[in-house]
Amino acid sequence: MTAAWDVLFTNVHLATMATADGYGEIPDGAIAVKDGRIAWLGARAALPPHTAARTHDGAGCWLTPGLIDCHSHIVHAGNRSDEFEARLNGASYEDIARAGGGIMSTVRATRAASEEELLAQSLPRVASLLAEGVTTIEVKSGYGLTLESEAKMLRVARRLGQVLPVAVATTFLGAHALPPEFAGRADDYVDAVCEMIAPLAAEGLVDAVDAFCERIGFSNAQTERVFAAARRHGLPVKLHAEQLSDQRGAELAARYGGLSADHLEHLSEAGVAAMAAAGTVAVLLPGAYYFLRDSTPPPVAALRAAGVAMAVATDCNPGTSPMTSLLLAMNMVCTLWRLTPREALAGCTVHAARALGLQGEIGSLAPGKRADFALWRIARPADLAYAIGFNPCQVVVNGGVARAPQLAN
Amino acid sequence: MTAAWDVLFTNVHLATMATADGYGEIPDGAIAVKDGRIAWLGARAALPPHTAARTHDGAGCWLTPGLIDCHSHIVHAGNRSDEFEARLNGASYEDIARAGGGIMSTVRATRAASEEELLAQSLPRVASLLAEGVTTIEVKSGYGLTLESEAKMLRVARRLGQVLPVAVATTFLGAHALPPEFAGRADDYVDAVCEMIAPLAAEGLVDAVDAFCERIGFSNAQTERVFAAARRHGLPVKLHAEQLSDQRGAELAARYGGLSADHLEHLSEAGVAAMAAAGTVAVLLPGAYYFLRDSTPPPVAALRAAGVAMAVATDCNPGTSPMTSLLLAMNMVCTLWRLTPREALAGCTVHAARALGLQGEIGSLAPGKRADFALWRIARPADLAYAIGFNPCQVVVNGGVARAPQLAN
Ligand SMILES: [Zn+2]
Ligand SMILES: [Zn+2]
Repeated sequence: MTAAWDVLFTNVHLATMATADGYGEIPDGAIAVKDGRIAWLGARAALPPHTAARTHDGAGCWLTPGLIDCHSHIVHAGNRSDEFEARLNGASYEDIARAGGGIMSTVRATRAASEEELLAQSLPRVASLLAEGVTTIEVKSGYGLTLESEAKMLRVARRLGQVLPVAVATTFLGAHALPPEFAGRADDYVDAVCEMIAPLAAEGLVDAVDAFCERIGFSNAQTERVFAAARRHGLPVKLHAEQLSDQRGAELAARYGGLSADHLEHLSEAGVAAMAAAGTVAVLLPGAYYFLRDSTPPPVAALRAAGVAMAVATDCNPGTSPMTSLLLAMNMVCTLWRLTPREALAGCTVHAARALGLQGEIGSLAPGKRADFALWRIARPADLAYAIGFNPCQVVVNGGVARAPQLAN
Repeated sequence: MTAAWDVLFTNVHLATMATADGYGEIPDGAIAVKDGRIAWLGARAALPPHTAARTHDGAGCWLTPGLIDCHSHIVHAGNRSDEFEARLNGASYEDIARAGGGIMSTVRATRAASEEELLAQSLPRVASLLAEGVTTIEVKSGYGLTLESEAKMLRVARRLGQVLPVAVATTFLGAHALPPEFAGRADDYVDAVCEMIAPLAAEGLVDAVDAFCERIGFSNAQTERVFAAARRHGLPVKLHAEQLSDQRGAELAARYGGLSADHLEHLSEAGVAAMAAAGTVAVLLPGAYYFLRDSTPPPVAALRAAGVAMAVATDCNPGTSPMTSLLLAMNMVCTLWRLTPREALAGCTVHAARALGLQGEIGSLAPGKRADFALWRIARPADLAYAIGFNPCQVVVNGGVARAPQLAN
């Protein structure tokens, strides 16, 4: 019997990321697409009888799953380069707060922006990711902090997936910061956040629910109320946990079957064990660690020993990680935290998919999965994590459709 | 009288980098080019009577001098991602050396490569820099370590300037490492290096002479012999100094009127004073500091206080700084070493020009200078150093000729 494919990629080396160890390498491989999904893959020499409407010569590139940025705040208005500069010119955090800076300046700008403005400002940042072979991004709300403006952010996130060749997973992060109109009434704001979930979910804007569990954010008990509300709506949860201190947030997330706990610099042994037992992914965010000049790394060795899957993401946000390169995040986890290049790539593919609950759809090369690929002009997969500020991406494939990495702007 | 220009750029904000403080900002400015050089610049409202063969609408971009990467080893064969991966998988430096790794693996690959191969391998790395508004690069030899292969590297450097829209300054770095055939005979190798200068200079391949003065490199006395040979040929010198230990290399470079001393993590107060007195530029190389997880920053405050000009460069090399983004180097000097965004931009423009002895030609916007510009879609100049892994470059101008940042590959 002859297979009938839509498109066949040949003259590529495959890194399937579908094996427990290594890259799942298939040198001189081929991969076939039918109806936007992987229909066959293997060594070129083992190709079965087939027809293909199109054949794409990969010119000896490595072909990996499309990259996944599983933690971003990439939809926001304005930036905070003015604060960055003021601080380097000697201003204190108090000076900047007095001048109206910090996260509330982003909240003000995001609230004031129209949906069109917010989309226009977010597009170049997303395009920067997409140029590096990213095919799926997660986008959080959290700079609106009212039902209306949180909905606006999430609508923009959805629209990104319509106007750009990228799949978008949306996360409602109403419990990101306490808005000024609720000053001194954090519990009331948590009530309001819980009540936002129903209308946002009804509009199809929420794939997961997140919170910022921290001394300067929301308490463990407040976070649990948000999680309980998410559960009532059948929505999965994830959490900004243990970035600045141990709030036992990862344990809470694990208790709620959380997809992921993210940051984790101050994660305890108990937190590691809870995540391992629950299958909660550890999302590592080196951009914030680097930008804030943090010196406490997440417990990578303990996570590895416990078998907790580690994902890697940009955390793209204007205050603590103004980063729009996932390849650079891969280099940072290797350079700063001693992950291996294989772990870094798994962190942006198979484990990132799991952090979004999409491991059945994307993140590795296997029959039936979505045909989202990146083709790289590299000598070996380790090149992706090794280079700093170099983009070897040659072709990106979304659902079987090939495009140039750089989008016109 | 009516000025007759070749091209006029309007609807741009100028950052001239021609003032002692600040960016030399001219909001809503214009800049005119005649015969590849700046003929006029100022506020658009102050434009004199003129004709212009072409007018370029800058769409509200910021226009800066083209960026200058004043320290690179970007011409080399192969990479060392295999070592990077082996080390992260637990191999020791001894394991890697036993397996033939380290700088000698790059020397072997570079010696074995044909001039065409070396060019082909270097082109994508240079293109990565050029996409970010770089218009001049410095390229060092130092992976050949024989007359023939050092000449090959420098010829490739010159050819980069012919096949790509970039000006190239070449530096002979024969005293980079001791080649195996001279093991135990470092002084003999220094003799050989000194003798290479004449034929290389005669072929027009040497704009400056450099050495690696370090315990694991060449001694202060050996370096001085190389400098003396350079002086006999009328060539300016610069030096890899005080990266791992204080060898009083910066003082030596200053004594020879050195254009720059580079790295400088272990620079002494005496070294700072000598550089200030000689006008020797401090070239800061954060990529190697980051990649090697160094913890001793260069004495930025002392350099600033002494009025030593600080340049910023990628140090692009396969062993200690596989970095091809000058914007990222700008972010690193701010994030890691607390330079200001203004100092970072000056470090890649006006001070980088001085590190190459080209301050009369490039590095700032002033009448008579070469019309090398970059146009950026940013809100303010600080954005260039603030963002991590984001390239806002819209147009690059080489000698008055505008091009797209991304080169076809
Ligand atoms: Zn975050
Ligand atoms: Zn160097």
